[in-house]
Amino acid sequence: MIRLSSSFVRTLREDPADAEVASHKLLVRAGYIRRSAAGVYTWLPLGLKVLRKVEQIVREEQDAIGAQEMLFSALQPKEPYDATGRWTEYGPTMFRLKDRREDDYLLAPTHEEMFTLAVKDLYSSYKDLPAMLYQIQTKFRDEARPRAGLLRTREFVMKDAYSFDVDDAGLDVSYDKQRVAYQRTFERLGLPTVICQADAGAMGGSRSEEFLHPTPVGEDTFVVSDGGYAANVEAVTTVAPPALDEAAIAALPAMHVEDTPGASTIAKLTDFSNEAFPGRGPIAESGEWTRYEMLKHLVYLLTHPDGTTEPLVIALPGDREVDAKRLEAAVAPAVAAPFSDADFARTPVLKKGYIGPIGLGLESESQIRYLVDPRVVPGTAWVAGAGEKDKHVYDLVYGRDFTADGTIEAAEVRDGDPAPDGSGPLRMTRGMEMGHIFQLGRKYAEALGLNVLDENGKTAVVTMGSYGVGVTRAVAAIAELNHDEKGLVWPRALAPADVHIMATGKGAEVFEEAERIAAELEARGLEVLYDDRPKVSPGVKFKDAELLGMPTSVVVGRSLAEGKVEIRDRRSGEIREVSPAEVVDAVVAEVREG
Amino acid sequence: MIRLSSSFVRTLREDPADAEVASHKLLVRAGYIRRSAAGVYTWLPLGLKVLRKVEQIVREEQDAIGAQEMLFSALQPKEPYDATGRWTEYGPTMFRLKDRREDDYLLAPTHEEMFTLAVKDLYSSYKDLPAMLYQIQTKFRDEARPRAGLLRTREFVMKDAYSFDVDDAGLDVSYDKQRVAYQRTFERLGLPTVICQADAGAMGGSRSEEFLHPTPVGEDTFVVSDGGYAANVEAVTTVAPPALDEAAIAALPAMHVEDTPGASTIAKLTDFSNEAFPGRGPIAESGEWTRYEMLKHLVYLLTHPDGTTEPLVIALPGDREVDAKRLEAAVAPAVAAPFSDADFARTPVLKKGYIGPIGLGLESESQIRYLVDPRVVPGTAWVAGAGEKDKHVYDLVYGRDFTADGTIEAAEVRDGDPAPDGSGPLRMTRGMEMGHIFQLGRKYAEALGLNVLDENGKTAVVTMGSYGVGVTRAVAAIAELNHDEKGLVWPRALAPADVHIMATGKGAEVFEEAERIAAELEARGLEVLYDDRPKVSPGVKFKDAELLGMPTSVVVGRSLAEGKVEIRDRRSGEIREVSPAEVVDAVVAEVREG
Repeated sequence: MIRLSSSFVRTLREDPADAEVASHKLLVRAGYIRRSAAGVYTWLPLGLKVLRKVEQIVREEQDAIGAQEMLFSALQPKEPYDATGRWTEYGPTMFRLKDRREDDYLLAPTHEEMFTLAVKDLYSSYKDLPAMLYQIQTKFRDEARPRAGLLRTREFVMKDAYSFDVDDAGLDVSYDKQRVAYQRTFERLGLPTVICQADAGAMGGSRSEEFLHPTPVGEDTFVVSDGGYAANVEAVTTVAPPALDEAAIAALPAMHVEDTPGASTIAKLTDFSNEAFPGRGPIAESGEWTRYEMLKHLVYLLTHPDGTTEPLVIALPGDREVDAKRLEAAVAPAVAAPFSDADFARTPVLKKGYIGPIGLGLESESQIRYLVDPRVVPGTAWVAGAGEKDKHVYDLVYGRDFTADGTIEAAEVRDGDPAPDGSGPLRMTRGMEMGHIFQLGRKYAEALGLNVLDENGKTAVVTMGSYGVGVTRAVAAIAELNHDEKGLVWPRALAPADVHIMATGKGAEVFEEAERIAAELEARGLEVLYDDRPKVSPGVKFKDAELLGMPTSVVVGRSLAEGKVEIRDRRSGEIREVSPAEVVDAVVAEVREG
Repeated sequence: MIRLSSSFVRTLREDPADAEVASHKLLVRAGYIRRSAAGVYTWLPLGLKVLRKVEQIVREEQDAIGAQEMLFSALQPKEPYDATGRWTEYGPTMFRLKDRREDDYLLAPTHEEMFTLAVKDLYSSYKDLPAMLYQIQTKFRDEARPRAGLLRTREFVMKDAYSFDVDDAGLDVSYDKQRVAYQRTFERLGLPTVICQADAGAMGGSRSEEFLHPTPVGEDTFVVSDGGYAANVEAVTTVAPPALDEAAIAALPAMHVEDTPGASTIAKLTDFSNEAFPGRGPIAESGEWTRYEMLKHLVYLLTHPDGTTEPLVIALPGDREVDAKRLEAAVAPAVAAPFSDADFARTPVLKKGYIGPIGLGLESESQIRYLVDPRVVPGTAWVAGAGEKDKHVYDLVYGRDFTADGTIEAAEVRDGDPAPDGSGPLRMTRGMEMGHIFQLGRKYAEALGLNVLDENGKTAVVTMGSYGVGVTRAVAAIAELNHDEKGLVWPRALAPADVHIMATGKGAEVFEEAERIAAELEARGLEVLYDDRPKVSPGVKFKDAELLGMPTSVVVGRSLAEGKVEIRDRRSGEIREVSPAEVVDAVVAEVREG
């Protein structure tokens, strides 16, 4: 029994100054958590109870699919992370430290390397596989912008699971098991999620899906269509127009350079084109020019993980901006930064403001990498810089007048863009990443030498999957989803206690009766929080009960003299009176029926 | 049910090369743990189950005395540890790191500061106290010599509890509650412990006791007497001879300087004295000189936490060596290093080999700190260096001819030395520290401003206690105590499973019957480990069962045809045959009766 008179809980009437979102405000005000440093939190007793319940649900669903729990250290030596390249690739988000011998260590952000080595240590044959292993463990990531209380922290509890299979078909089976386990887990946690196609980013690999919980406080943007498509913005593939064949391309007007004085921006170039060449644009009846055809060229400096750099020119329709996260995902593990004036000065072939496709590409003399938006297909005609001031090229046809080194998914995705699977227009939605399942493939096994002998006695590289749930973040998301203006409203399965008993009166008989009810409910197997504080007013006790958020509460107060106690439902606000003789059965029924 | 065919367990027939103690060898060989770096271990599935059971026992005994569980982060900012001085005092054993903003952080070795700040945050009145809080959490210490597998690691699970009281009497009550909880905890863990008086060392404070588990692999030396005295070597206080009064001292022979050519060591000086002044030594009938009277002077360079240094001269009877750990504890938080030749060169007043007490002391001209062994009491007569080559002073009487700045407990303790409480001679014993309870007093509360208003409305500084159990180390100690030459022998309460079922035969009926027994035992609430591996010989299965160490095993094999299965007791080796119909009841009875 949790007795409020001696519990390490204090409620606050004011929101903490640094809190922006409801979960953060309420978890602090209700005495569940406290901040100890930027993005680092302390779990007070009530908060820890919620955390452990969330962990236990995650654990049970992992156990249910045959995953085996183990536990790795947070402190890990550099070497395995060097072997996979992650020591470098992870960048400043990885906490690094040296021990007293000046050896390099890290605080693991995830444990792919260590699980891979553990399986390499114990297993050697295809007969040992498949294997699914997991841990619920404290992770460390030096986030640039820890935010919103528990939503993005630098030390947090995560469930990370890894699957090991001898072939791709096996990986698909393991992946699907985890996918189902995640659906069950989030259902039990009461967190609606949308399964989004995700970019695997720095993790490499093929299938990759995020479980996003739609919420306005989410920091991920994702897109959905009415036909059921859902994807992380980084993972959306662009629907390209049909390409023309060679004969059709040959029939298009030849390209021509025009003087375009002062048309130094897309907007000006569009206006100029409509003034100088009215009726010659591509819009069917009016012949109008739009910003779309004005092919925009942007230059970046790519820095590869090994430290080498190279320029990258990206071309995209003039009505689109580059989306920084899509660009980041598209070039990973390299990092792209906008070309600086100094970079331009060092690269005279790139004439800022008048860059066009001619002379770009790894196979051109310039050897500058040149990538285009997927909408730039053979037979599409564009207006672009001619490489010198106040001149542009018109009727520049891709596949005839210029080519590129490839395409890049870097242009922004907009509301109304078509879903790549033809399931209708996309809508932008905000969400929070609750889980992520990846097919890592053989990247880690290859880097660390995890092989087994296959059925034919030949060496096979093991293929892996990686599956994460943010346990700490789930607590925040649950609090965010389950609150009102008065406080928290815990789901029954996750509340720190099943029932909150309040003695609201001055007479000893009120406390005695409340104590009896609390003890009987505990004897019946319920977790009981009992507000036994003397000299605290009923108003304060009611307010605290609403703030703390147990799903059911019992008030033993003035009406006890008339043979009545109250049962209150936190979520509906419903209050009903029962006799003291009935209250235990009534509460047990309510808790058990859920 | 744990099925060995698919469990992440592999046994090894050979001891790991780096293992010295049985617990380390067997926990690795049986697939409970793996090393991931020096002093850093991975818990494989079976090991994790044992760890969790030990944690749960520790938790239950904390809960039983009303301690409340919470959870602090491992990553902590420097500031609170600066305020208490521990950022500096903890030395290289504290893992330190910087975040991406170059701010200083540490991985907490213990959490006194954070618990103190948490109580300061929530509490403000004497009515809020007493409070007892704890966590079971991962700690980090960069040990200079991680050793013996889990016995001394750099990342480990620890239960650390802290008590908060308004006065010393309250602290005594809290301390005694933890003392009882520790006795119960170690009893449930099956670990005999001796409660030893301990030096509080760098933690400061008054009462301090260690729970030492006597074992030859322990790295702590402690002493016990037949009369019940037990203490850490660092905590033993020396029994001093009676001092003489002034009149008696005045009657002693005057001191005199003698030529002692070549007597540059204690041994030579003793021999020289017996030759040059036979019959004038203190031994009652023979007048023999012993090494005891040859007062040994040793010089150290003390380095204080703030980086300042000073020389320190220690004098002790010539038949004793300095005990490095006692010296370390005696000078903490300063650190003592032997005076180097360069140090001697810089300090000409200290003539190496001929140092004596004359001219030493903070109030002398030299201003050199001078401390003596507690046996050096007023009226004791000594032989010591005269401060120049080949000369010594005889009949040098403490309290008449020289004094010191104080005493120091740095001399070695020996078998046969008297216990300070008069309970008989001391015996040296080796043990392993399993728990430690301290009265911290007001050090942390003062440094961090943890005050409450007392009954009279006045500000009172809170007094604290600190109580730790090494959970990881307990697993090792339990394995160390519970093994034989064949493998581990887990106590029932801590085994990863209650029973180990083996199907040792080729026929399908053997596996079917074993499966039925396993399923029924699980249905009866037992944790079952089932060796369902096909094509593994009975011999290998028996050996693995002995290595893994479940307390009870069931063999379903050849004798099944005759209507018999075997129940084996791992500890006694006893084997009995029962019918398949009886086996479930028989095993349940055995497990329940414990």
